[in-house]
Amino acid sequence: MDTTLSVLQYDLVFNVLSLTIAAMFAAGLFFFGARTQVAPKYRPALLVSSVVVGIAGYHYYRMFESWKEAFTFADGAYVSSGVAFNEAYRYADWLITVPLLLVELVAVLGLSRAKSSSLLTRLTIASVLMLGFGYPGEISSEAGTRWFWWVAAMIPFLYILYVLFNELGRAVEDQTGDVRSLLGRARTVLIASWWVYPVAFLAPMIGLSGATAEVAIQVGYSIADLTAKALYGIVIYQLARAKTEADGWQEAPAAVTA
Amino acid sequence: MDTTLSVLQYDLVFNVLSLTIAAMFAAGLFFFGARTQVAPKYRPALLVSSVVVGIAGYHYYRMFESWKEAFTFADGAYVSSGVAFNEAYRYADWLITVPLLLVELVAVLGLSRAKSSSLLTRLTIASVLMLGFGYPGEISSEAGTRWFWWVAAMIPFLYILYVLFNELGRAVEDQTGDVRSLLGRARTVLIASWWVYPVAFLAPMIGLSGATAEVAIQVGYSIADLTAKALYGIVIYQLARAKTEADGWQEAPAAVTA
Repeated sequence: MDTTLSVLQYDLVFNVLSLTIAAMFAAGLFFFGARTQVAPKYRPALLVSSVVVGIAGYHYYRMFESWKEAFTFADGAYVSSGVAFNEAYRYADWLITVPLLLVELVAVLGLSRAKSSSLLTRLTIASVLMLGFGYPGEISSEAGTRWFWWVAAMIPFLYILYVLFNELGRAVEDQTGDVRSLLGRARTVLIASWWVYPVAFLAPMIGLSGATAEVAIQVGYSIADLTAKALYGIVIYQLARAKTEADGWQEAPAAVTA
Repeated sequence: MDTTLSVLQYDLVFNVLSLTIAAMFAAGLFFFGARTQVAPKYRPALLVSSVVVGIAGYHYYRMFESWKEAFTFADGAYVSSGVAFNEAYRYADWLITVPLLLVELVAVLGLSRAKSSSLLTRLTIASVLMLGFGYPGEISSEAGTRWFWWVAAMIPFLYILYVLFNELGRAVEDQTGDVRSLLGRARTVLIASWWVYPVAFLAPMIGLSGATAEVAIQVGYSIADLTAKALYGIVIYQLARAKTEADGWQEAPAAVTA
């Protein structure tokens, strides 16, 4: 990266990365502790939520350190130190967390084992393809190469969104009340946050300059990760709570009336 | 290690080690939290799973640091810094975790105490011999020495696999339904992942050059560890869940019907 960043640009990414570390680990603690608030059948969903944001917190910590190493302060601006910012942390993170985000959803929907297994197999293969295609584009600074891999990665990306959109639509129809409206919200959060990724990827290809593009990518991906993992985890938690109530499950109710 | 690595080779190992740290600790959090999802008698198996991946996460963190120390960037490539990459971390890890992986399996199979104890004693002795023989070969760069210790280590290695294969085969026959198919899966994961170790060890002896061999060993061992510890732990969890269901155990069953 031969980009020169203004102090404001460097600090913006620096602070967004730090904020994301805090938010991810905080969300992890919440989901881990909150799992006993829901019926046993929905607890794996919350446990997986906590694992996902924990993995993300680790990778944001690594990216924060890598960002500091990648730039040197000179003459009132931040210039490349010669060590590249390691984009691979994002892809390593997504390689583990994208399938797990799908596991969360499948776990909270309470689908049959056969249905879950077929859905997860197809979506995991699609997400590995999506990331495998995205990475060579991400580390390239050539617009043609970036476009080529962007288009390739968009095919499995659209497939995943299509499957989830349909699956969630079907789940919405089967439900009533709070569960129904929360499923609708989960669908909105999922679709809205996932779209930020391919758009942030486009930043250097739509006329943004080197520094502006770099900042747009880093801030964009961080906001997308916060939404797709932490906020999405909160919706999963609310869904699990609503389903727990709908199921009539209560923690050891006999204890109170005894 | 006087190996010169290309940026791509160095980065591949670097990123695989980092991903493994994340995956191991994440798996640890999951197994620790998931132990209350299974009947009390299977919880020690999940607790041991979480301990195993926790130990591995620690050692991968050490290896990640050791890898960074072992190389210096010069003239567009990574050359040895003079400090050797510490292979002992892997052997220290295996010395603790291999017997514990066997404990996990024995714990989830629910064998009698006498049977478990005899099995674990024999397998622990065999695994200490296997690692004790493997290590002098691992740190040698001479093909003759590597071959000698490889053959020596293969004897206890094959003994362990033989015993486990038979034991799991017997367990499979005793079971039906989900438990039966999951036991089959545990056997596959175990055998498939364990074979990667002696094959990765062979890399420098089958004509791979210094740099390629080093990368093949590190990536090979990491994938094997991810499979033999984290993925295997997931199968142990599924087995414990299936056995919990087959046993008819439920958390606070009175609560639902009260």
